[in-house]
Amino acid sequence: MVVVGVSERPDNLARNIVENLFEFQFSGEIFFVGKRGGILFGRRICTSMEDLHEGIDVAVILTPAQTVPGILESCGQKGIRWAIIETGGFREYSEEGAQLENEILQIARKWGIRFVGPNGIGLMNVHNGFVVPFVKLRRGPVNKGKMSILAQSGGVLLAYANLLTSANVGLSKIVSMGNKMDLNEIDYLKYLIEDPQTEIIGLYLESLERGRELMDIARSTSKPIILHKANTGESSRHIAKLHTAALANDDRIVEAALRQADIIRTKDFRSFVNAVKILSLPPIKGKNLVIISRSGGIGVVAADSAERHGFHLLPPDKTLQERFHSFFRAKVIQPTNPLDLGDLFNFDLYTNILQQVLKFPVVDGILFMHGATAEEKEPSRRFIQAVKDLSIQYQKPVALQYNTDEEELAYIKRALDYPVFAEPEDALMALAVSRDHYRKLNILKEEPTFFSANRDRVEHLFQKARGEERDLLLPEAFEVLQAYGISVADYRVVQGKGDLQKAIEKLGKPVALKVLSPQISHKSDVGGIILHLQTTREIEEAYHRIKKITPGDSFGVLIQKMVSSGKEVILGGKRDPSFGPIVLFGLGGIYVEVLQETSLRIAPVNRFEAQEMISELKSTAILKGIRGEPPSDRDSLIENLLRLSQLMVDFPEIEGVDINPLIVLEKGAIAVDARIVLKNAKGIAHDV
Amino acid sequence: MVVVGVSERPDNLARNIVENLFEFQFSGEIFFVGKRGGILFGRRICTSMEDLHEGIDVAVILTPAQTVPGILESCGQKGIRWAIIETGGFREYSEEGAQLENEILQIARKWGIRFVGPNGIGLMNVHNGFVVPFVKLRRGPVNKGKMSILAQSGGVLLAYANLLTSANVGLSKIVSMGNKMDLNEIDYLKYLIEDPQTEIIGLYLESLERGRELMDIARSTSKPIILHKANTGESSRHIAKLHTAALANDDRIVEAALRQADIIRTKDFRSFVNAVKILSLPPIKGKNLVIISRSGGIGVVAADSAERHGFHLLPPDKTLQERFHSFFRAKVIQPTNPLDLGDLFNFDLYTNILQQVLKFPVVDGILFMHGATAEEKEPSRRFIQAVKDLSIQYQKPVALQYNTDEEELAYIKRALDYPVFAEPEDALMALAVSRDHYRKLNILKEEPTFFSANRDRVEHLFQKARGEERDLLLPEAFEVLQAYGISVADYRVVQGKGDLQKAIEKLGKPVALKVLSPQISHKSDVGGIILHLQTTREIEEAYHRIKKITPGDSFGVLIQKMVSSGKEVILGGKRDPSFGPIVLFGLGGIYVEVLQETSLRIAPVNRFEAQEMISELKSTAILKGIRGEPPSDRDSLIENLLRLSQLMVDFPEIEGVDINPLIVLEKGAIAVDARIVLKNAKGIAHDV
Repeated sequence: MVVVGVSERPDNLARNIVENLFEFQFSGEIFFVGKRGGILFGRRICTSMEDLHEGIDVAVILTPAQTVPGILESCGQKGIRWAIIETGGFREYSEEGAQLENEILQIARKWGIRFVGPNGIGLMNVHNGFVVPFVKLRRGPVNKGKMSILAQSGGVLLAYANLLTSANVGLSKIVSMGNKMDLNEIDYLKYLIEDPQTEIIGLYLESLERGRELMDIARSTSKPIILHKANTGESSRHIAKLHTAALANDDRIVEAALRQADIIRTKDFRSFVNAVKILSLPPIKGKNLVIISRSGGIGVVAADSAERHGFHLLPPDKTLQERFHSFFRAKVIQPTNPLDLGDLFNFDLYTNILQQVLKFPVVDGILFMHGATAEEKEPSRRFIQAVKDLSIQYQKPVALQYNTDEEELAYIKRALDYPVFAEPEDALMALAVSRDHYRKLNILKEEPTFFSANRDRVEHLFQKARGEERDLLLPEAFEVLQAYGISVADYRVVQGKGDLQKAIEKLGKPVALKVLSPQISHKSDVGGIILHLQTTREIEEAYHRIKKITPGDSFGVLIQKMVSSGKEVILGGKRDPSFGPIVLFGLGGIYVEVLQETSLRIAPVNRFEAQEMISELKSTAILKGIRGEPPSDRDSLIENLLRLSQLMVDFPEIEGVDINPLIVLEKGAIAVDARIVLKNAKGIAHDV
Repeated sequence: MVVVGVSERPDNLARNIVENLFEFQFSGEIFFVGKRGGILFGRRICTSMEDLHEGIDVAVILTPAQTVPGILESCGQKGIRWAIIETGGFREYSEEGAQLENEILQIARKWGIRFVGPNGIGLMNVHNGFVVPFVKLRRGPVNKGKMSILAQSGGVLLAYANLLTSANVGLSKIVSMGNKMDLNEIDYLKYLIEDPQTEIIGLYLESLERGRELMDIARSTSKPIILHKANTGESSRHIAKLHTAALANDDRIVEAALRQADIIRTKDFRSFVNAVKILSLPPIKGKNLVIISRSGGIGVVAADSAERHGFHLLPPDKTLQERFHSFFRAKVIQPTNPLDLGDLFNFDLYTNILQQVLKFPVVDGILFMHGATAEEKEPSRRFIQAVKDLSIQYQKPVALQYNTDEEELAYIKRALDYPVFAEPEDALMALAVSRDHYRKLNILKEEPTFFSANRDRVEHLFQKARGEERDLLLPEAFEVLQAYGISVADYRVVQGKGDLQKAIEKLGKPVALKVLSPQISHKSDVGGIILHLQTTREIEEAYHRIKKITPGDSFGVLIQKMVSSGKEVILGGKRDPSFGPIVLFGLGGIYVEVLQETSLRIAPVNRFEAQEMISELKSTAILKGIRGEPPSDRDSLIENLLRLSQLMVDFPEIEGVDINPLIVLEKGAIAVDARIVLKNAKGIAHDV
């Protein structure tokens, strides 16, 4: 390897790279390039890339931005196919920087060079000592381990390395991805998923340009991925753009996507570290938790926290109760959960209790709230070793919270290699991550339902609209929905008074009339929708009023049977630049206006996800039927969501779909109005 | 002082009490009592209380529960007027234990003895070395300081002592209150508020029997009170009762009360410790925050977190922008907020930047995200000292987050006595506590508005109803509301057809008819409310139907003018055993049914609190007017809430009031139905 940018000066940053390689005992040969020349660590600094031998694998570059294209060109000539560019001052800094970056990319493509960065602090492979950040690091506390981290910020990467090291989590590979000009998180992830030295993957991202690929990759591996996605707010957006050229995503879409792909999302450092800790224990396969505590009070705090995190505290089970009773008969202790160990001071007995509880099939995991006085340190350490063994033996997590002084905590972490949580809330937050992750692993297996659909008809309608450079007219949108099995309220398109009479006879009353014109996308804004027409006279009057809106047009007027009962909901589809097709759901009418509650998922959605979309909205309580009304047909609503999802996936040329409202009846559901916007058509802004 | 329950045996728990007194260098004389006698630490153990000298101030008792009454009796005889009872096995354990506890209380009352406990681990006064927990403690890391803690659990108390000591927070008095049989949190708080060695008070409670007193005491002091109130869930309730005999409170009421009294509420250990840390800095008096970070990425994380916690990131201010510009002209750094220090490595420059920013009046505080490599430790320590000085000089908080290794963190905490936050989220959570606390201090000064009311009339109506052992009839409830200036929709009580005709003429149409009977509390359940009566014939028919419900009664039928427009809301009053009068607010009709959103406050409420009650409900967006409707009269709604609050405060005999609905109009608001339940009357269950 070669480090480019070194000098004899003691404040030279590239020198830190070399010192890190020494500190972490990298075993390869290291060459130096620096324009001032001289000697560093007994080896001559080449003043030009030309002076290098052939056969170098990788170059680490830390020179001023404008020199980087030239150096990369030399790398190409010398047969170097890998580079790590740590230099900043590119896209994140200025317009000229962005041009330089493009130049670099072209040179790399020409020579087949793949590179990390620019504008990152490099990477570390703790296992082979290839540690090249320009910030000096100490090997001392860093353990070799199975945790790898990719980060879009060097500072955050180092913060995580510090925190994980403090928590005694061993590290494998960590990468500061910088501007991700060539290699990006998807490339690194592909590597880490195959890497036998990596078992848990952590990610820090400020932007997600490849959302869909990320989902696919996460679904392809059983290695857990924890993502700290930052840059969610207004104020962070500006600074994120400046320092790593990150663009902002719609965070609601990110949230849904990560959930669907079972990527564990964290929003701060603490929850990230807690998640890593719990993933080193066996998973908790259900919500039945037993809390055992040396202090009643801490048991109370833990029970509150357990409830907040959706755990169920046994014992409801009679056998467990009796077992506890027989076990504690001699002791003044009540067989409760949380179990207060109170006056028991025997650590061997603790081990025994743990084992008895773990044996019960109904128990999914244990939270043990530990504490030890100065005198108890020795037996306490033995006990923690026993906890570790039991957790492995029964393949259930025993999360350990330990209230003791700082030195003892440090000892436990380093010497016993068992995760310790600082307080009940940390442990329960972590256990919830483990439970949800395990649960999701199973849910994800469910394939999206496949519905047969008349794709040819849809294709034909799209071609026609594209040919005429317009979006779909209402009857066409209705036809698309019907081709995908979504019911539409009976309608006719009428061109004159005779037509109108016939339509009224066919449809019955009351009806609605709607204007038809490719020029009008918001029909109600121009008075183009008239509802609740009861009599023939009313209908005729309304017909004339609507005709006047578009005097020249020949598209006719749509007459539609009013749906008299049911609940209005809104189904939507849109396309995200990072995640692709998305489906949306919300309650219609006053609810969406006042509460602005909607849910969304990345398409295709499976049945379980569609159910979640409905149940996660508070306002959908109305679908259960209030004030003695019958409940609405939830199954039909779910099916319509799934059909819309399939439509969005089947036709990438759809920019947006808006079924507003779909009326959910006691039995079935009917679309009453709809809009379909095609890509590159004279589209209409589509709101989430 | 005397320690009762000691023996020569090495596992004797009371012996730990003595060792703690030695360890913490208590300067008073210590006597021992233990039934086995012998010699401990060179002093004879008296076998009986009789053998003690006169003139002992305080007894610390750790003997089996059944011996405690006798020992306390001896204390009385010996003139000991203070006791700390650490023994368990009382009310929290069994029925007999509860009886023993009552016995103890009677003996104490007889002799004028005040006592701590029972069932606690005692207390610590770090300043004078009176440290009597039966758990052995080490003085080493414990600093003398200004933080005092009261806890209803010994385990939680020790956990806090450990955590605060780790965070370098000095301690003053800590008390394990146990079952609070005699002395309770109110007594201790009264002491701590006067105590010159206490500046911040922490509380851990599992039950709040004296909620109103707690509010009053908190309002009487400028010392901040931080409360970790646990036992909020179903599962914790049982165990809390077992270990300290704590009953459960309605947590929504607790939440409102603490907010109104500006008691800082925390739900886990971390937020408690963060709150303590920030309270040692000057308060942040507004929401304008500047974030300065050595890493762009950590700045992004901090900005996200700042937004979540309601901070506003300058610069909107042009002067500050220009100042930044001139300041950084020579450097490749952009004047943004968060400010990324990026390539600046000069710690003196950091100090200078901090000072420049603090000088701006518009800046309320700074969050500095620090990090230092091994080489930078020395200048970094000097910088932190400068941060500390600047924070005091400008009386604005500079919250410091420090990303470094564990040893350096430990050094900073111990040596510099400046709070350091582990991650951005901690710092921002803490800054939000400081901001809200400061803001509340000013809001609380607002006195509740006083309305003149016809109290005599209300008194008369209550006496009449009490005399007849019934709740108020609807017209009486209306009269009470009117006496307090709450408008009621026009009504008449009619006794026959002639009456009815006259009433219709007076009121106009449409009207509603309502049954009147002290036997019927839920009128609609029996068909006793008929609404929207348009014609005289409809009214007459309805009148006969209602008369049939109560054939024997002579209370008549209420006829009331229908209110044709406006928004339905619900106002309520109830009485909590711990907090006294409470007012409730919610939207009526479909909103309360589907969303079940209500807000509540402890009465009396001031105008600001009433405003909050309305604005904290998402559904009140409807009052702003949707679909082109005019907005509802929010001021009138607020005034009605204040009037109801005053009614609840003026008449402690009111158990509950239910104004459902109050119709808020474009101008004004009118009560349409109401129920008032008196204490000890044949009351009706009242739901929140």
